[in-house]
Amino acid sequence: ISTIRQIQYPEQTREFDSRLTKTGRRSLSHSISHSSTDSNSSGGSDAENPEDEVSPRDMQQINSKGNMDFCIKNIKLADFGRREIELAEDEMTALMALRKAAQGEKPLAAAKIVGCTHVTAQTAVLFETLKVLGAQCRWAACNIYSTQDEVAAALAEQDFPVFAWKGESEDDFWWCIDRCVNVEGWEPNMILDDGGDMTHWIYKKYPHLFKKVKGIVEESITGIHRLHQLSKAGKLCVPAINVNDSVTKQKFDNLYCCRESILDSLKKTTDIMFGGKQVAICGYGEVGKGCSAALKAMGSVVYVTEIDPICALQACMDGFRLAKLGDVVRHVDMVITCTGNKNVVVREHMDLMKNGCVVCNMGRSNTEIDVNSLQTPELVWQHVRAQVDHIIWPDGKRIVLLAEGRVLNLSSSTVPIYVLSITATTQALALIELFNAPEGRYKQDVYLLPKKLDEYVASLHLQTFDAHLTELTDEQAKYMGLSKYGPFKPSYYR
Amino acid sequence: ISTIRQIQYPEQTREFDSRLTKTGRRSLSHSISHSSTDSNSSGGSDAENPEDEVSPRDMQQINSKGNMDFCIKNIKLADFGRREIELAEDEMTALMALRKAAQGEKPLAAAKIVGCTHVTAQTAVLFETLKVLGAQCRWAACNIYSTQDEVAAALAEQDFPVFAWKGESEDDFWWCIDRCVNVEGWEPNMILDDGGDMTHWIYKKYPHLFKKVKGIVEESITGIHRLHQLSKAGKLCVPAINVNDSVTKQKFDNLYCCRESILDSLKKTTDIMFGGKQVAICGYGEVGKGCSAALKAMGSVVYVTEIDPICALQACMDGFRLAKLGDVVRHVDMVITCTGNKNVVVREHMDLMKNGCVVCNMGRSNTEIDVNSLQTPELVWQHVRAQVDHIIWPDGKRIVLLAEGRVLNLSSSTVPIYVLSITATTQALALIELFNAPEGRYKQDVYLLPKKLDEYVASLHLQTFDAHLTELTDEQAKYMGLSKYGPFKPSYYR
Amino acid sequence: ISTIRQIQYPEQTREFDSRLTKTGRRSLSHSISHSSTDSNSSGGSDAENPEDEVSPRDMQQINSKGNMDFCIKNIKLADFGRREIELAEDEMTALMALRKAAQGEKPLAAAKIVGCTHVTAQTAVLFETLKVLGAQCRWAACNIYSTQDEVAAALAEQDFPVFAWKGESEDDFWWCIDRCVNVEGWEPNMILDDGGDMTHWIYKKYPHLFKKVKGIVEESITGIHRLHQLSKAGKLCVPAINVNDSVTKQKFDNLYCCRESILDSLKKTTDIMFGGKQVAICGYGEVGKGCSAALKAMGSVVYVTEIDPICALQACMDGFRLAKLGDVVRHVDMVITCTGNKNVVVREHMDLMKNGCVVCNMGRSNTEIDVNSLQTPELVWQHVRAQVDHIIWPDGKRIVLLAEGRVLNLSSSTVPIYVLSITATTQALALIELFNAPEGRYKQDVYLLPKKLDEYVASLHLQTFDAHLTELTDEQAKYMGLSKYGPFKPSYYR
Amino acid sequence: ISTIRQIQYPEQTREFDSRLTKTGRRSLSHSISHSSTDSNSSGGSDAENPEDEVSPRDMQQINSKGNMDFCIKNIKLADFGRREIELAEDEMTALMALRKAAQGEKPLAAAKIVGCTHVTAQTAVLFETLKVLGAQCRWAACNIYSTQDEVAAALAEQDFPVFAWKGESEDDFWWCIDRCVNVEGWEPNMILDDGGDMTHWIYKKYPHLFKKVKGIVEESITGIHRLHQLSKAGKLCVPAINVNDSVTKQKFDNLYCCRESILDSLKKTTDIMFGGKQVAICGYGEVGKGCSAALKAMGSVVYVTEIDPICALQACMDGFRLAKLGDVVRHVDMVITCTGNKNVVVREHMDLMKNGCVVCNMGRSNTEIDVNSLQTPELVWQHVRAQVDHIIWPDGKRIVLLAEGRVLNLSSSTVPIYVLSITATTQALALIELFNAPEGRYKQDVYLLPKKLDEYVASLHLQTFDAHLTELTDEQAKYMGLSKYGPFKPSYYR
Repeated sequence: ISTIRQIQYPEQTREFDSRLTKTGRRSLSHSISHSSTDSNSSGGSDAENPEDEVSPRDMQQINSKGNMDFCIKNIKLADFGRREIELAEDEMTALMALRKAAQGEKPLAAAKIVGCTHVTAQTAVLFETLKVLGAQCRWAACNIYSTQDEVAAALAEQDFPVFAWKGESEDDFWWCIDRCVNVEGWEPNMILDDGGDMTHWIYKKYPHLFKKVKGIVEESITGIHRLHQLSKAGKLCVPAINVNDSVTKQKFDNLYCCRESILDSLKKTTDIMFGGKQVAICGYGEVGKGCSAALKAMGSVVYVTEIDPICALQACMDGFRLAKLGDVVRHVDMVITCTGNKNVVVREHMDLMKNGCVVCNMGRSNTEIDVNSLQTPELVWQHVRAQVDHIIWPDGKRIVLLAEGRVLNLSSSTVPIYVLSITATTQALALIELFNAPEGRYKQDVYLLPKKLDEYVASLHLQTFDAHLTELTDEQAKYMGLSKYGPFKPSYYR
Repeated sequence: ISTIRQIQYPEQTREFDSRLTKTGRRSLSHSISHSSTDSNSSGGSDAENPEDEVSPRDMQQINSKGNMDFCIKNIKLADFGRREIELAEDEMTALMALRKAAQGEKPLAAAKIVGCTHVTAQTAVLFETLKVLGAQCRWAACNIYSTQDEVAAALAEQDFPVFAWKGESEDDFWWCIDRCVNVEGWEPNMILDDGGDMTHWIYKKYPHLFKKVKGIVEESITGIHRLHQLSKAGKLCVPAINVNDSVTKQKFDNLYCCRESILDSLKKTTDIMFGGKQVAICGYGEVGKGCSAALKAMGSVVYVTEIDPICALQACMDGFRLAKLGDVVRHVDMVITCTGNKNVVVREHMDLMKNGCVVCNMGRSNTEIDVNSLQTPELVWQHVRAQVDHIIWPDGKRIVLLAEGRVLNLSSSTVPIYVLSITATTQALALIELFNAPEGRYKQDVYLLPKKLDEYVASLHLQTFDAHLTELTDEQAKYMGLSKYGPFKPSYYR
Repeated sequence: ISTIRQIQYPEQTREFDSRLTKTGRRSLSHSISHSSTDSNSSGGSDAENPEDEVSPRDMQQINSKGNMDFCIKNIKLADFGRREIELAEDEMTALMALRKAAQGEKPLAAAKIVGCTHVTAQTAVLFETLKVLGAQCRWAACNIYSTQDEVAAALAEQDFPVFAWKGESEDDFWWCIDRCVNVEGWEPNMILDDGGDMTHWIYKKYPHLFKKVKGIVEESITGIHRLHQLSKAGKLCVPAINVNDSVTKQKFDNLYCCRESILDSLKKTTDIMFGGKQVAICGYGEVGKGCSAALKAMGSVVYVTEIDPICALQACMDGFRLAKLGDVVRHVDMVITCTGNKNVVVREHMDLMKNGCVVCNMGRSNTEIDVNSLQTPELVWQHVRAQVDHIIWPDGKRIVLLAEGRVLNLSSSTVPIYVLSITATTQALALIELFNAPEGRYKQDVYLLPKKLDEYVASLHLQTFDAHLTELTDEQAKYMGLSKYGPFKPSYYR
Repeated sequence: ISTIRQIQYPEQTREFDSRLTKTGRRSLSHSISHSSTDSNSSGGSDAENPEDEVSPRDMQQINSKGNMDFCIKNIKLADFGRREIELAEDEMTALMALRKAAQGEKPLAAAKIVGCTHVTAQTAVLFETLKVLGAQCRWAACNIYSTQDEVAAALAEQDFPVFAWKGESEDDFWWCIDRCVNVEGWEPNMILDDGGDMTHWIYKKYPHLFKKVKGIVEESITGIHRLHQLSKAGKLCVPAINVNDSVTKQKFDNLYCCRESILDSLKKTTDIMFGGKQVAICGYGEVGKGCSAALKAMGSVVYVTEIDPICALQACMDGFRLAKLGDVVRHVDMVITCTGNKNVVVREHMDLMKNGCVVCNMGRSNTEIDVNSLQTPELVWQHVRAQVDHIIWPDGKRIVLLAEGRVLNLSSSTVPIYVLSITATTQALALIELFNAPEGRYKQDVYLLPKKLDEYVASLHLQTFDAHLTELTDEQAKYMGLSKYGPFKPSYYR
């Protein structure tokens, strides 16, 4: 089913792939890792037999208050879901702080938001925050597998119009989206999207509504790409904010998360000992910097490959040997790709690797390692355990391929809730900004999150660390030519 | 004398100070540390008695080939100076590689460059490179104290028109500059400036020449500020390249150099042991990041203060406690300012410091520590050794103030030749670019070094590290939508 | 059943516990982590119903060569087991190098070894090495759950007398041991033990054989303790080597492994993000040093507690704040015990912890965290997932207790094969040493592995890292007063 | 003059050299770095003309109290010296804490100590502490150049019998020592020695006094060697404590100090930038570990050479490539020796080095680099600045030799006062221990400082770091089988 949806936009995907910068990778990861897409994509499923069950669409449910404006798996799961949401609230302190700070002001009063994101405990905290800030929301899932049914039930029990369940069909998927938009006497004026499907639906089916929308907040690279295409074609009549490329979110998605998840993912799959191992890391962008730092700290000897001399010089100054992969591939114990490019590790490299060499990809999609070149008769594939294959050469040499070349930490690691909190807070602020922006601040284009809001997201998350910001004095602010409340750096500052 | 020149533009300097970003700091440092300004500023001098000597202007010299188109201290120093230049060539491998690579092509043929920079062995390598690449040059010093007379002699001996000596008077200074420009039958078409004096002189005195100039390359923050002012006033009729803010140069000036010089400077002045010491570092920009990393590596416990939440979050993720200075100042052993701001450490902080606390500034100028507040009757100043004062409180408590609050590593450390090589290579490439740019590429404005050239500077310097760049395949370049030869990253990438 | 065995020596265990040094912890870990003891100790089992099956003792099997001198689960598993052994050989390069180096010499010719260790692919490589080096061996399992039946089958198929299966009863356990010793016309002269049961059995049941034994090699802390007791009582009539406390093994068990497994274990259980988190680490011995270094490298702020001023000073010089637990426990996000002591974290500490604080033990046994104090009516235990419990205070605060206070990395991490290789190589060399030692070198006492052999184990493992040792020249050896072939350091050197 | 003293014991020195372990290096360093030996050894002197002056021996001085029992340069310097001592007291907080803690108890009442050490502000704090603790002391200098005359004056002014001045002759040296011992009606019962000269003098000249001495505390490797020789010869009739090899002192002398001083020394001599540089470090003992860690942290790529497989494995696990010097010497930018061995870097290596390679020694004495092999006609030596020579090959290649191969940080760095404080505190405690030890605790042998006192030294120094030790509960102490007050670790623990 998921395949069908992908087939629907084949040329887009290709075009999209060809222009992606590396920085986009983790928002993808977030989507996938929090859906069940990944685990289900290999064909199996969690022993659920959807055919046997009555579809939620055919089964009218009602919550304890008599409300029926929702469509979910099972309203009885509400209590369990509420506990999950409460646990998530405990951990999403930044978003809860925003909720508390702004609840008096109600900056989203009169906002009518249709949302299409994953439906999980964490996103529930986001949607309930939007409600507290004054918004009316309707919500569908952006992925047919990722919904936590108990969370949907908890929302429904609180009269939240949610239309989502785990294991939707393709048809269900669009039906749910339509139920959010197509409401008697209610017209959405804001879109919160993750993947662009809600935006696409309204644009195609309800062009008159689309024109009245005040703003779109989009989280995924795919969705942002679609918006850019609309914009290029002169058909985007609404301002949109790209929340994926904010500085705060990017640093966490790429540098800080990867620094931890590379270790985690390798241990979970291989139990390799890092100390003393020689590792080639291809690419020294944020992902490569994170991976290199982590492995160096664990006592590995790291070689870096780069095409960009400036990143290469940074690698040198950070104490890494800069080499070509072909020159070190014979003696390294691991090769990790982090380039966002294709065919970075090819068959010629793998022919040279020593017995037991581990090969994996922390970059983007599944292009970096030329896995196809290993699909030849003389090589034997041995599936060792989840995410681990041994490829055996005729002379007995074996290399250890992880996640079949797909992005390793999406497959074998989880996104820390801290990062989900950054995403959700960014989304909430982007909605508030677009909804309240004075006439003319935003044209019909795709914007980055304003620097000042990016800084605000960061400041909300500092509280978790018991961290204390210094405030500029009036005199200092004047001396620096800055507002006391930011933004503090030029917009390009990373 | 140097004071006179400063007095000449007092309002400019003030205005300039008020808008400087932190990133500008080290180019200043470079200027100062390579002039003799610093060592002479305390009043003394190297036992030279300028009054007793005949001024070079009154003493016609002639080189071994019969040439007299220069004005220097003593042509007999040429051999010694040549050895100094040769040693510098040995270490400036990147610039020499550029010289070799481009000498066939002669990209500066027909270029007539007037230069006004420090006159040292390292800059001599630059100027001789420009000559090899086809340019005709005339050269004056940008600082009345910083000229290495033996180097000037070596250049003069090779028929290089150089007008500079150590210990020029204010009048000499402008006379030398004029001798570069005001030449019968020769008109400059390029300016290489460090401080803006050459540009200013031509702009003011020879406006007809100024209009014919093809481009200006400016190194210093002061000079760049002046260019921006000209530009804002609509009077800049020539494109200019700001070589100070290139990525490569900035990373070295701020992050990589400071990481080393903070340790070096502290040891040279205090002999303090870093292990186990508690240190407050104010500001977590590039300079603060470098200082924090170095001290952490030496076993210090580092606290960071920040005003910008994004930098603050980076400090947290790098493992530093984020605190307000007032909250930690009682128990730290050192306070280091790296903010570019003013009055970051004030009397109230210093009153709270414990006995023996070291206070110093790695940021910009001398504003960060409120040294004036220590100039009160109840405090005793004890000058302990060069760059070190003890300030003694009535109860006997003493704090250790380094370099009287001026930038520490400018006073007590030296700029590695590697960084000078980056500057010189950047200057040469900027000249080539401006001189050869097709009509229309550059307007009458101040530009940053094109990303591609920035990358080229980096690639030339990689060779020092025996570092091997990977080249994109045609297929990969196409996939990424990049040229095989760069630029590889968006211009804002740091 | 396992309880029965523990009950058998209650006073020993207690006494043993009271004198253990921290350094002993991981050999224990090794034993446990490679048995199924841990996962079964909570009562459940892998859905095996031993009662339903025919016991191997009642089911005579025969290998393809007609040999029947073994007792295992199922000889048909031999092929599968052989592949497992071959994979292990690939990774245990040091042991294989020893096998190859010594196979001509046959240093164990005439050795008759009875072994009692875990029966796994890795130990099979050890036993087959002993055989290649000339020994005759008979082998039983030291743990009733840890046997890999397919490996036992592979050995039996090669005529190796092995008596072991997964899921032995207490009676089976001793029966298997007896089958190794009580053989018509064959008398063991060497013992390889892990836990002391084989030694105990021979000492008790076959005192006449015990006297003829040339040497004992013991791996576990428990076994070493028993040997020391025998020795103290004057009843140890055989020299023994304690292989647990060799420098090489200790460094890996404690420092290098824990540096990696602390991260691994925490991620597997909690998905916590390390960056910016505040962590209290109790104890700065080798385990504490490893944990502290790893978390610091991941961007955590680490506080250390210590009782020993010398270790405390090391923590300071390594850049950690030294604090009392009570002083930091309110604001840390994690508390990790590494002391080897008891009641290091008590109820009073846990009452002060903030919501969400993670508590775990990397030290020894289950004494460090006073888990009993949490078994009170006002606290609610919520079992969240394997190894993770939430303990909920009346006000809603919850702390996250990992592995119920047992050693975390034993429960949730695996021992890298590299460490198993160090153990096995050490055991082999100890056997060779004892068997070939000239009369009088070893008395009837418990010895550490001779420094020179310890160095040899290290040198064999260096090959994995493509590491090249320097050899002393004759002149240098003489100057240093050393043999060219070691030992190079005094025996106390760590 | 200094040469004469060295000639006096030539065979001893040689023998001493041949057995020294590396760990002894820094106590030597301490001695040298705090004398003026080093700066004077090249022949010159600080423009003092000893011949012109009246010798202190010929010039009776008297202090303000009428006391004349001292012999120093100039009593008028007393005030200046007192300020120096007070500043030292400020920084030697551990020793001052000991002074305060024990002054009531007076553990050295009745002790009559003759001392022979450097006479500096720091040692003055030690001697005045001994006095406060009840001892009577007489004091001579252990080095003819290292005395701070103003400090000696301050002591004399306080009636302290001190016999020392800067620039003693050989004859003066022994005269001063004799004035300490040969006193009417006063017999020493304790010796505090640094080099063994006082001990030697009493042993030779006053054997009847030697027999009555209760204990000797010796600081230097040379002195310890002499004591061991006496002991071996059966002539040591007094217990002695070797304070050089205590754990605390060793860690600081070798690991922690070198980690800082390697950077400091290289910067002071060469201004080299560390980032990206390739460095070979010979030897991975404590000194090598410190140097490697420091350079790695600064972004250098470090290769380690080792002869000892256990240290080699540690290097691997710490992330360093282990190589033979010959295999990497062609491409490294620096070679640093830390072995304690001889001819580690030989001419063949230096012939292979690349242009500009820096060579230096952080190990012991001047044997590690075969400097003699560079004294050949085809090589040109160019003295560039203090501690820096360029050696130029016929093809123009130059290597940069630091400190002529002598120990680098002794020549170009200073010992932090923190380390001097550790030494002084250790000496004080050793004197107290020997003076108060019950009959029989110490035989006529050379002892290490008891572990418990070593721990006490550490605990006194923790206070500087605002570090808080945890105390064992009674229950915990019992569980561990330890006293609550230590010692906490076995004596071999490092």
